Amino acid sequence: MVSARRIESGSGPVRLGMVGGGQGAFIGAVHRIAARLDGHYELVAGALSSEPERARASAAELGLDPERSYDSFQEMARAEARRPDGIEAVSIVTPNHMHYPVARAFLAAGIHVICDKPLTATLADARKLAALAGKSGRLFVLTHNYTAYPLMRQARDMVARGELGDIRLVQVEYAQDWLTEPLEATGQKQAQWRTDPARSGAGGCVGDIGTHAFNLACFVSGLEVDSLAAELDSFVAGRRLDDNVQVLLRFKARGAAPPARGMLWASQVAPGNENGLRLRVYGARAGLEWSQENPNAMWFCPFGRPRQLITRAGAGASAAAARVSRIPSGHPEGYLEGFANLYTEAAAAIRAMRRRNAKPPKDSLLPTAADGLAGMAFIDACLRSAAKNTAWVKLAT
Amino acid sequence: MVSARRIESGSGPVRLGMVGGGQGAFIGAVHRIAARLDGHYELVAGALSSEPERARASAAELGLDPERSYDSFQEMARAEARRPDGIEAVSIVTPNHMHYPVARAFLAAGIHVICDKPLTATLADARKLAALAGKSGRLFVLTHNYTAYPLMRQARDMVARGELGDIRLVQVEYAQDWLTEPLEATGQKQAQWRTDPARSGAGGCVGDIGTHAFNLACFVSGLEVDSLAAELDSFVAGRRLDDNVQVLLRFKARGAAPPARGMLWASQVAPGNENGLRLRVYGARAGLEWSQENPNAMWFCPFGRPRQLITRAGAGASAAAARVSRIPSGHPEGYLEGFANLYTEAAAAIRAMRRRNAKPPKDSLLPTAADGLAGMAFIDACLRSAAKNTAWVKLAT
Amino acid sequence: MVSARRIESGSGPVRLGMVGGGQGAFIGAVHRIAARLDGHYELVAGALSSEPERARASAAELGLDPERSYDSFQEMARAEARRPDGIEAVSIVTPNHMHYPVARAFLAAGIHVICDKPLTATLADARKLAALAGKSGRLFVLTHNYTAYPLMRQARDMVARGELGDIRLVQVEYAQDWLTEPLEATGQKQAQWRTDPARSGAGGCVGDIGTHAFNLACFVSGLEVDSLAAELDSFVAGRRLDDNVQVLLRFKARGAAPPARGMLWASQVAPGNENGLRLRVYGARAGLEWSQENPNAMWFCPFGRPRQLITRAGAGASAAAARVSRIPSGHPEGYLEGFANLYTEAAAAIRAMRRRNAKPPKDSLLPTAADGLAGMAFIDACLRSAAKNTAWVKLAT
Amino acid sequence: MVSARRIESGSGPVRLGMVGGGQGAFIGAVHRIAARLDGHYELVAGALSSEPERARASAAELGLDPERSYDSFQEMARAEARRPDGIEAVSIVTPNHMHYPVARAFLAAGIHVICDKPLTATLADARKLAALAGKSGRLFVLTHNYTAYPLMRQARDMVARGELGDIRLVQVEYAQDWLTEPLEATGQKQAQWRTDPARSGAGGCVGDIGTHAFNLACFVSGLEVDSLAAELDSFVAGRRLDDNVQVLLRFKARGAAPPARGMLWASQVAPGNENGLRLRVYGARAGLEWSQENPNAMWFCPFGRPRQLITRAGAGASAAAARVSRIPSGHPEGYLEGFANLYTEAAAAIRAMRRRNAKPPKDSLLPTAADGLAGMAFIDACLRSAAKNTAWVKLAT
Repeated sequence: MVSARRIESGSGPVRLGMVGGGQGAFIGAVHRIAARLDGHYELVAGALSSEPERARASAAELGLDPERSYDSFQEMARAEARRPDGIEAVSIVTPNHMHYPVARAFLAAGIHVICDKPLTATLADARKLAALAGKSGRLFVLTHNYTAYPLMRQARDMVARGELGDIRLVQVEYAQDWLTEPLEATGQKQAQWRTDPARSGAGGCVGDIGTHAFNLACFVSGLEVDSLAAELDSFVAGRRLDDNVQVLLRFKARGAAPPARGMLWASQVAPGNENGLRLRVYGARAGLEWSQENPNAMWFCPFGRPRQLITRAGAGASAAAARVSRIPSGHPEGYLEGFANLYTEAAAAIRAMRRRNAKPPKDSLLPTAADGLAGMAFIDACLRSAAKNTAWVKLAT
Repeated sequence: MVSARRIESGSGPVRLGMVGGGQGAFIGAVHRIAARLDGHYELVAGALSSEPERARASAAELGLDPERSYDSFQEMARAEARRPDGIEAVSIVTPNHMHYPVARAFLAAGIHVICDKPLTATLADARKLAALAGKSGRLFVLTHNYTAYPLMRQARDMVARGELGDIRLVQVEYAQDWLTEPLEATGQKQAQWRTDPARSGAGGCVGDIGTHAFNLACFVSGLEVDSLAAELDSFVAGRRLDDNVQVLLRFKARGAAPPARGMLWASQVAPGNENGLRLRVYGARAGLEWSQENPNAMWFCPFGRPRQLITRAGAGASAAAARVSRIPSGHPEGYLEGFANLYTEAAAAIRAMRRRNAKPPKDSLLPTAADGLAGMAFIDACLRSAAKNTAWVKLAT
Repeated sequence: MVSARRIESGSGPVRLGMVGGGQGAFIGAVHRIAARLDGHYELVAGALSSEPERARASAAELGLDPERSYDSFQEMARAEARRPDGIEAVSIVTPNHMHYPVARAFLAAGIHVICDKPLTATLADARKLAALAGKSGRLFVLTHNYTAYPLMRQARDMVARGELGDIRLVQVEYAQDWLTEPLEATGQKQAQWRTDPARSGAGGCVGDIGTHAFNLACFVSGLEVDSLAAELDSFVAGRRLDDNVQVLLRFKARGAAPPARGMLWASQVAPGNENGLRLRVYGARAGLEWSQENPNAMWFCPFGRPRQLITRAGAGASAAAARVSRIPSGHPEGYLEGFANLYTEAAAAIRAMRRRNAKPPKDSLLPTAADGLAGMAFIDACLRSAAKNTAWVKLAT
Repeated sequence: MVSARRIESGSGPVRLGMVGGGQGAFIGAVHRIAARLDGHYELVAGALSSEPERARASAAELGLDPERSYDSFQEMARAEARRPDGIEAVSIVTPNHMHYPVARAFLAAGIHVICDKPLTATLADARKLAALAGKSGRLFVLTHNYTAYPLMRQARDMVARGELGDIRLVQVEYAQDWLTEPLEATGQKQAQWRTDPARSGAGGCVGDIGTHAFNLACFVSGLEVDSLAAELDSFVAGRRLDDNVQVLLRFKARGAAPPARGMLWASQVAPGNENGLRLRVYGARAGLEWSQENPNAMWFCPFGRPRQLITRAGAGASAAAARVSRIPSGHPEGYLEGFANLYTEAAAAIRAMRRRNAKPPKDSLLPTAADGLAGMAFIDACLRSAAKNTAWVKLAT
């Protein structure tokens, strides 16, 4: 296993800022823990809320220098870019519709971006942002955190090495229940913006969690989706965005084997499901099965032999898993550790880029703006297919 | 719990014959065990194989009177109908294409029929058989055995009583792996006829196990499928029938609530899956989750409360489950017991019909020819939809 | 897999009688289903209750010839021994204190005995019965049914073949909760006799289920217990027998390796446990873990490799499991099938013994009176140890 | 749920030093992550190894000021006590035999101590240290981290509120397999000191993990062990300390109910077990079952009702769990988060003690030196009992 020590070493913490994530937010706190966990970041600036009062109060709670608590992200980008000790990277943890303008401002200021998913609220914005990110010379990381679980890294690696044979089937699902009732009507903040097209974009459940499922399916299988057929529903009266999505997937062919097929189900109205992201991949020689709620174990099912339970850091764990593992098998690592893996890998990249003329790393497994664009194309395709009564549509990035 | 004693009582065993199920068959032996388990049948006649030699050898092994081992089902129907001690019921366990002619012959002879699924090899045959069965005045039982698991009976009952609220989602899957490789090419008998359109009908996996998944989803939810959109694949080179099917389901509306949606996946090429029939039903108030491979437990997930594990004959088991349960909780009952429940209920019905002018019971939960016709309509719809590039098609019985 | 057909073949059913098992009994019905399941027995006589009225009513329900429903077992043994079509074997399913006199009567009459466990109510009776059984030339089967689960047969075989290396640890437990409250005070029949020293013997929980745990641990490990140290408790006020037992086990040494150690826990007051018999065996090279409530799967844990899930009739199932398996993997077999395995093997033995001068089979895995005597010695040792404040005591058969 | 924000707030980080935890160590890195995770500490000094070279190299890797990397803990205690910005607390992560002298030095210097378990290498040292800690006026935290899992906090709370009724049984086990073979002979550092009496003390497995099991059993049940009977074994040839321990427990009575009983098993030679700490507690009204390897779920089994799965932060989670929970249910928190809970609670206490004349908090759930003394008494009692052939012995603190 890669020791925590190696993770801890390096030449000084990365100076980090944050946009969004003020009082009442959920994902901002997750990003902060993820940044802290391996000790590679120092949070030194923020525009933590669009409401100046709240921004300042939040900054005080986090112990930020009041001078570096900004009322607007524009001001923050400008000011930090000018400081000799200005931030090197910014975490964007706002509602979706703000991702694009914020990311644009910081990339323009030469600052690396770590951005929550989905990439943007619209496909048009996504295209612009992906183009910008590509040209910026800066690191752009999209926090598809589930890809950074050790066993998902191993799964991708096993598929890539051919241990499953030609991939035939990708069954992915992401089931939750927290929107079973009209929670948004109660004023709950998370529910409100996630069911509001102006802030979430045109996808509800499909954008919020469907994109995670889509991303993970592609990450592990190494395949691209060619086209899809989708059914979107909103089961709760008065809800403006979908709360359940069911999708058939056709993957692009690889070699002579028949192209793989897939099913994707994402729901926020399935009672009893908390955060049920589950991936199953079947090839001509073996299958893999994994569930996010118990992320330290993965089934490997070689055809014609008993199924094996591979555990993170256990006897069957590979180098791909070990690289992002901190503690021995049987000592569960969870969601925050997976999330922190992205931050830690980003820190390594950022430090490497401190060298003159350095470019973003090529061989990284960090999710990029291009992955984010693919996710937005997935949402867009789902909406188009649903509008055409579940017709097959191509993904258009 | 209904005691085994009550099950055992009754006025003399039902005289049973069997068509198919000779040496080398699988499901014939299952039917015989199911018939024996609760002691309600006596197997006294058979046309156990279409090959006379094998038929006779099989009959001898089973200890049948050689006089009542027939070379053909036609002869058997005629001869048994004439005997004063002739069979009262026949079990049909042939490949699918023979179900219709055999059933027709025995119904015409006034003999009750217990028939393996799917109902027939073609929708046209299914329509004729369902019509015949309806007019025959005889009992016709289709062995959709999974509906007879105690907890599936309870699930149906809980849905019917409204414990889940309006049903929104039905996620059903049936995954196996035994056809991952071209087993039919090795001469294995089960694989051969199941991948042969002449004997199986136009559906492969969709007919063999997809119909079970479809039937169980409808049985438990109490809903009817209005239309579906299907993708059928055959991943193994040279295979003539589908070995994987992925289906979106639209159920007919009930009342004012939005109509329920569903996904159905059936596969015989998913390594690591043995007989993975799994059903999940979610309503506005609660969810249910169940897996056939561990049939003695079912999750009940009331929204906003911890999920509960209901066990067969345990504290949360209802009368609907107890009625078809033999032994205390923690003492697992399995596949054969579930199958035997159908035989036992059929025996009760047959005995009741020994009374002059008695008709088949109305309130029975036994699967009927009408259920079989619905299953054939499901196969037909899947094939039509797949032929139209996954267009939505209505089920046409 | 051994086909059901092979199981079904043979030269005529075994004529069976039953003592005990009348209305209100539990285990009698289980024995009857087990006898029927594979079609090797015909139940033709009974002394089903010590109360003549109940005996007759029970016999009528089961369709026995009224002439062969006896008011006493003595009369039954005499009469059946005289009939040319008399029973060949008797199932004894009375409370424990009657096992000895009943078995003695039938063995004396030359009739094979299938007897529920524990062997007797006292160690003294057990010694006499084991001696009798050994000299009788008749088959004596004690229904330690859990040893007949296919995967327990495989486990024993794997240990014997050295796949685990030298055995170091045997952890066995059998937890139930049905006596958590004073159920015997409500008049419930099962609870009444099981907590009554006059009918159960001096052991309560230790005899009722502790003996199963002890027997299974020895069966699978192939080891003998040298000595034990036990703590017995009765947690429910007014209860006359133990309802919880905790035991340390020292096994006899095998070769040069340190002797194995074990722990045994049996309880009837552990809320949430239905029939939680669970066995774990660890050797120098691998471990095995199994739970009766999900008997179709067993963990095989080779040291230094991922743990594997072996399934009954699945890819990792051995010949030892296949021999007592009826249907393919993924189609769960349960408690009744395991129980039926004993009856089916007994039928094979009984038929073989129809040959002149035949003796009971030597290589059988059927539990014997000697196993029953070992179980009684286990109860006795637990009681002696507990009486000496958990001192180590030797098992004395 | 208590927001991460609240956890993050506070008046400046606690200045922390560390003794031990240099290159090649395991638990030191865990302590550092735990200290960082919620942002309450700043690691500023260390004596990271008893080898000065390694100490300096380790300090450099961690980015410590070279001036504050000490060659000995004595020097560190002296120097830091004198600095105006000296450490407020020290983490002791050395082998067991050093806990006492190091803790004594820092307590004497007025510095709070966070110490790995077991408390010391000998009971005599433990008594002295517990006395010192009690009189020191400083905080002393022993990192029995498993007690800080949210659901273990909830379990303790449920027992204390009487939701289980009078406790009858406590079954606890801690199974690992990493010492199945003579790993210490290969030079592996963790195995070496843990099997060396000079560094571990007289207990091997019993001290390393048995103490965790013992501590957790007492923490949750709220009960004290009166006496125990133990069997210790060393299965691997040449091993100097026990690698397997089996213990019967008698708890002190509470009120009129019979005193509770328990079994404790700890092993490092059970193939297939990684870090299998598992606790089951049964009372007169309900049971609880939990496994450390899946710490986000706990079974609650009310007698006579279906068992419920309580999840961390889910519908059934109580305030006791929420207090130490960071993220929503279904997002797994693991070992590091549990460990961090101790550090975060310690930081709160240390900050509160910055006030003049403040004393260590009274109502804290943090494990203390007294708990550590109890653990040492447990080891001592196991050794004494084993030396007397498993006689019952009283725990002597």
